[in-house]
Parts: sequence; structure tokens; C-alpha cells
Amino acid sequence: MTELDAAIDRLVRPIADWPEPGVTFRDITPLLADPVAFEAVIDGLVLLAEKAGPVDAVLGVEARGFIFGPSIALRLGVGFVPVRKAGKLPSTSLSTSYDLEYGSATMEMHVDAVVPGARVLVVDDVLATGGTLLAAADLVAQAGASVAGNLVLIELSALGGRERIGAAGCESLRSY
Amino acid sequence: MTELDAAIDRLVRPIADWPEPGVTFRDITPLLADPVAFEAVIDGLVLLAEKAGPVDAVLGVEARGFIFGPSIALRLGVGFVPVRKAGKLPSTSLSTSYDLEYGSATMEMHVDAVVPGARVLVVDDVLATGGTLLAAADLVAQAGASVAGNLVLIELSALGGRERIGAAGCESLRSY
Repeated sequence: MTELDAAIDRLVRPIADWPEPGVTFRDITPLLADPVAFEAVIDGLVLLAEKAGPVDAVLGVEARGFIFGPSIALRLGVGFVPVRKAGKLPSTSLSTSYDLEYGSATMEMHVDAVVPGARVLVVDDVLATGGTLLAAADLVAQAGASVAGNLVLIELSALGGRERIGAAGCESLRSY
Repeated sequence: MTELDAAIDRLVRPIADWPEPGVTFRDITPLLADPVAFEAVIDGLVLLAEKAGPVDAVLGVEARGFIFGPSIALRLGVGFVPVRKAGKLPSTSLSTSYDLEYGSATMEMHVDAVVPGARVLVVDDVLATGGTLLAAADLVAQAGASVAGNLVLIELSALGGRERIGAAGCESLRSY
């Protein structure tokens, strides 16, 4: 186990039965509160991002993807594109509906946020069932662009997200 | 006007009558898409942050405060604390209700996110009526800590936020 793995294990807090009985939520807030570990996580994510090859933009999914995506975008020298919940973006948007681990939701992206042909890296905190990342991929495809890779801090491997995502693949810093 | 002011004017898009008739929304997404300008904005915000003196944590308000807060926290070498909409935080939380520019909302912060006596810097994208920053200050006070300063990218000066915030003050990169 690397030092970074150990820091993630120490600072990502499992919360039993939240938001529903039988679900164990991974709470990243203690990690965010530790600037040394948080910086190491960004460093680690940037290294993994390089596996996706050159990208034109980093996409972050509201809300926790906003915590990691911008720092990674700035380190890669590309722009950050927010994917938001329905009704939050002020300009003309693309829209997609999808199933969450607990319920369903609609996500939107500005129609001019990603140019046709662009290669984008999609960032979120946790890969669970993969629904959020698939929704982001649908928005990217609607814009005529492609997902160069997905990148998360934590993968919950028992939930089958990696299988659902398929060929685009997903890099994660830590798998539970 | 500085080069940074000009970049903000060029890349923050006014959206008339959104989300309500008569309101002009400031859309920061074109700025986020421009990595040079986005980095310059972070640099500018970090410089302004230093006016608040040494701080123990940076607080960011969901969702757009998450886009700026973590980068500023990492640059200052302190932790990032997310303030979230009701029901989003998995552990025991403090809660406060407040009026928004358009409606009302409840915000929460983990009860152990800020230690008593800490000095925190509150970061958001826009200062409008000041309701969000006052709500964050209420959460900080409930935790026994204090607001060392507020920091935003854009201030909408006609909406009186600065007056409502009072002594804690607010630094902004650009005022409209």
C-alpha cells in the first residue's frame, strides 16, 4: 500500500446506512480538511489523468466533481466545464437523464461548453454504479466530442460501474 | 482597468432575465473554460485572501464556491470545508436557513469541520445580497469559530451585500 493509499484510508470516512439503509457512503470531507493529503490526492489524480493522453477540457460533475476538477484542469492547462443539475445553467444547455445509485436525476451542460471533436476528461469523486459518468459521456457525445477518460478518487468496485462504463475506462486512486 | 479586470469583463457573460425577469445573472462558465484567465483569477483571489491575514481553513459554498475554494485552500496550505445544501452531508451537521436573491434555502456544515477558535476564509463566486455569506458566517459562529474574511470573484454592488455583511468585509476581484 502506498503512502497515498494509507492517507485515503485514514481520511475517507465510511458512513454506514447513508443515505439509505444498507449503503455505506464514503465521506471525503476529512480528506479535504487535510491540505497535505488533499494536495497529494490532486497530484495523484493529475498523474492518472496523463494516462488519458492529451485532453482539451476537464469536465466536473456537480457538486463534488467541482472540488477536484478545476485543480486538475489548471494543472493540465485546459479549461474546466461544469456539468450541473437541471435548471442551474443559465445559457442554452444539453440535457440527459440517468439513474443514480439512489434515485434518478437530470444533468445539463452548456451547448457551447465543449467543441465538436474535443477530447475531454471527466472527473468525479466516486465511481459507484457509473450512472453519473455515463450521463456525462452522453452530454459529451451530444456535443460531438469524445470522452478521453474518466477519473475518480474512489472506486466502489462491487457496484459494477467499471463494467457499465465500458471502453472509455476509468482511473481511480483507490478501490474499495 | 487591469488585464485581469478586462479578462473578467470579456469572459463573464451577463444573462438577462435569468433566473427571473429583471435579474441579470453573471455566468462564469466562459471564464472557467479559459485556463489562462481561470489561473489568473485564482492568483488574484489568493492575493486578496492574504488581506484576511492567516486563516485556518477555507470554506466554500455549494456549488460554485466549490470551483474556487479548493484551489485557494491548497495555495494557502489550509484545508477546505464544504458548506452544502440541506441533506447532502453524511455526518452530524450544523444547519442555518437564509434568504437567497431568488427564494430561500438551508445550508449545512459538518459539526466537526471547523474547530472552535479557528479563523476561516469564506469563498464564493458572486456577492449578491450577501445572504449566502451571512449563512456561512452563522455556521462558522455556531462552530465557535470566526470569519477572518469573505472572498468573491464578482460583487454586484447595487444589491447591498457588502452593507449586510458588515464588519467581516468582503474582497472581490471585480465589481459591477
